[in-house]
Parts: sequence; C-alpha cells; structure tokens
Amino acid sequence: MRPLILLSNDDGYAAAGIRQLADMVTDMGDVLVVAPDGGRSGCSMSFTSSVPLSLRKISGGYGLPHTEVYACSGTPCDCIKMAMHEVLGGRRPDIVLAGINHGDNAAVNLHYSGTMAVAIEGTLKGVPSVAFSSRKIEAQADFSALRPTVRRIVQKVMSQGLPKGVCLNVNYPDAESFQGIRSCRMDMGDWVNELERRIDPRGRTYYWVTGSYESHNGHDPATDTWALDHGYIAITPIQIDMTAHDFQFEV
Amino acid sequence: MRPLILLSNDDGYAAAGIRQLADMVTDMGDVLVVAPDGGRSGCSMSFTSSVPLSLRKISGGYGLPHTEVYACSGTPCDCIKMAMHEVLGGRRPDIVLAGINHGDNAAVNLHYSGTMAVAIEGTLKGVPSVAFSSRKIEAQADFSALRPTVRRIVQKVMSQGLPKGVCLNVNYPDAESFQGIRSCRMDMGDWVNELERRIDPRGRTYYWVTGSYESHNGHDPATDTWALDHGYIAITPIQIDMTAHDFQFEV
Repeated sequence: MRPLILLSNDDGYAAAGIRQLADMVTDMGDVLVVAPDGGRSGCSMSFTSSVPLSLRKISGGYGLPHTEVYACSGTPCDCIKMAMHEVLGGRRPDIVLAGINHGDNAAVNLHYSGTMAVAIEGTLKGVPSVAFSSRKIEAQADFSALRPTVRRIVQKVMSQGLPKGVCLNVNYPDAESFQGIRSCRMDMGDWVNELERRIDPRGRTYYWVTGSYESHNGHDPATDTWALDHGYIAITPIQIDMTAHDFQFEV
Repeated sequence: MRPLILLSNDDGYAAAGIRQLADMVTDMGDVLVVAPDGGRSGCSMSFTSSVPLSLRKISGGYGLPHTEVYACSGTPCDCIKMAMHEVLGGRRPDIVLAGINHGDNAAVNLHYSGTMAVAIEGTLKGVPSVAFSSRKIEAQADFSALRPTVRRIVQKVMSQGLPKGVCLNVNYPDAESFQGIRSCRMDMGDWVNELERRIDPRGRTYYWVTGSYESHNGHDPATDTWALDHGYIAITPIQIDMTAHDFQFEV
C-alpha cells in the first residue's frame, strides 16, 4: 500500500504554498489535503467550538495524481481532526505535512502559527509531522527552490520517523538558493508596536493588530532567526511537552 | 506605588471565574482586567488579523476597589497586547493572571487553551504569569475554596518572580477542599471521538468538534492529570521555548 501523506495549512486549500507542496510529494504516496476554506493566519492551535463545521470535496483537486482535496470551514487543528476522524475513516497517515506557509514561523512566532498547529496536532495524534514555511510572503510565491530539500526531509521522516512527541519546524529564507541546512533552536524575542489605532468614519476608535519582531538572540548562530538571516534553511525540532522540567514551584 | 496586576481569561470579562479572581487579589495591588467581550474557549494563542479590534471600558467594573475592567472584541492574546500597548500606556504589569477558567487546562489541553495563552503571552512579554483553571465548569461556579492558595501563589510570584521564559499552569480539582499542592509535569494523552456528524434540516451534513480525553500517563503521580484525579492542586511550570534540545535532525 502506498504511504498516506496528510497535508494542511493555515492559508487555505487554494493557496499557492499547499498546491506546490502537494506537487512536491505526490509521487511519494497517496496525498490527502484537508485544509481551511480560506485564510486562517495567526489562528494557533484554536479549534471551533461555538459553531459547527462543514466539509467539501474540491472537484478535480489540484489536478495531481493520487491527490484528493477537501476544504473545511474550520481551523488547521479542525482540519486534522476532520481528516483523521471523518475522511480517513480510521486509516492513519504515515506523515502530516503543513504549509508551505507564505511567511516564516521561526522564533517565538510558532506559538501563534496555524501552520505549526497542523504539525503539533499531528504529533499529538502520534503521527510524524513537519511544518514548512518560507519568508516569501507573496500570494503567488514560487517555492520551486524548496523542492529538493522538502523531498529529502519528507523521505527521511517517512523512513525513520521522529522521536515521540517531537515534530519539525522547517523555515526557508526568501532566496532561490540556500547556504545549507542548520539544526536550530527557536529564537526568543519581542513583538513591538503591536497595535495601530485608527478612527472610523463615525468617529469611533478601533485597532489593528500589527507590529514587528525584535530578536533577543538573533546574533546567536544556534537560532532559527540567525539561520534565516544568513541564507540557511532552519530546521527546529519542537516538542509538545511544554513542562519546564528544571523548575519546581513550591508554595 | 501599588503593584499592577493584569487579568484576562478566555471565558469573557463577565464570567464568574475572572470576577472571583479579581476579588481574590484586589487588596494586593491595582487590578486591570482586559478580557474578551464574550467566550473564546479553545482559541489558543490566536490573534486577530482579519478584522480590527474594539475596546470598551465597563462602567462600574466589578464594583471592586482599585479595579478597572475593559472588554475587548478580540482573543485573550489580543487582550494582553491591548492592555500592554494601549490601556497601560507603557506601564508594565508586575504580574499577569489568567482565569479562573471554568474547566481544567491540564495535560496536552494547554495547547488549545485561551487561558494558558494569556500566561504564555505575558511570559513572551517578560512578565511573570500564572494561569488558574478549575474542573468546576458550571457558569456560576463558586471558586471560594481556591482563594487561600490563589493568594499564596500570587504573593510568592510577585515577591520572587519566575525563571525567564517560564509561567505556571495551576489546575484545581472539582472539590471544596484539597489534598495538597503538587508540582507536576503535563500529562500526555489522546482526544478521541472528536467529531459528531449531524444532518441539518436541509439534509446537509455538518460536524461539531467534541470528544473525550484519554490519558497515556494518568497513573503516573508526576502528572497533572493524576494530581487532579486524586484531589490535589496541580502546579505545572510551562516554558515558552518549545525546542526539543535533545534531538537534532540531520538530512
């Protein structure tokens, strides 16, 4: 039986990134895409509890062999739950892939990321999972330079697995060729100027969430921020156990 | 100057849990509540990017001294950003508190939790942060049994701080008295039966996200699940660095 590759993202099933990711792996197994029906950037591990979900098969999919595409009205986490409980009817994927996200999810930003949520949800379900993101943010970005390394990473994870409770956060610089691949740790930093205040036509105040990221450790070559800033592909292994094992709080 | 205590939650500013938490700490400093204008359960670290936010001061607040209350149209993460960038105008809180959540956020469930998102967002901003949750889920739950330990934990964190990048996830069993307090690690487990399929009046299929949690390690007294199951208060230190430092992926 061909391996089963489950794909999702947070930019929606129609995004260029997930179409190109499907194309990169379609010869490696049966590909099932269950992705949001539109953009869900910044949705983190949210799931939908206040309204019900709908699921729709996209006729013709991406025009790729061995590939089925579904759009779900929910979040990336909802999509993985929908795939595992409903679409697959009990068959387990061999790997869960997220992305390719238009925009990186390095450093502390993984906490907000719907792309990483796909990989974390896959890991919670015991499936080896990899999230791919790129600093190319344009809607029609060409990710073809990523193809050889995406394929090598997927092949290696499918053949060797990942440690229990660990997934990969893979981030690419905005470039057409890369200096190499680095195994990284997530950078720490601050978001600053996160709110922009405006006045609406009726004189009422409203706010946009925005801001820019200021790295604390971006000068440290061990971080994913450094790798991206210097043209390297950053692979950061991420664990779902967030316990601070070195600290005990006594009260 | 009195310490500044920032509160938020994911059940909304009007929830019984956050009102009672404010009452428990109002004599310990100036209390600022910036909380969602309604329920946001399961929203994780999501922030709002597709629509702008509004902010509204609640006249009369909770009727407590030294306490101001604001409702924000966004998520718990948005509320902390709104408090830090807009309401406080640069003054930094001495502590960020989340909850009291109606429902526990132990084990892997912290990944989905808007309550924990408050504490993680506070930690990302360098402020010592504590999330409080209880297995009492009723909307009008009486959390008065939590008061002495909530106060001791808040006092200790305000006087001694927390390690950089670490916050506390405090969970209470559904009880009026407790066996004690345990420093725990987060339990691992699975959510099962996460989708309920229904047919709408027009014959179309829709789905509710639901399910139940099955612990992998709930028999292990080191876990938060064991502590709650045995009547203990579970304090789990949580770190925002999710790097799996013991693993390097070579490709």
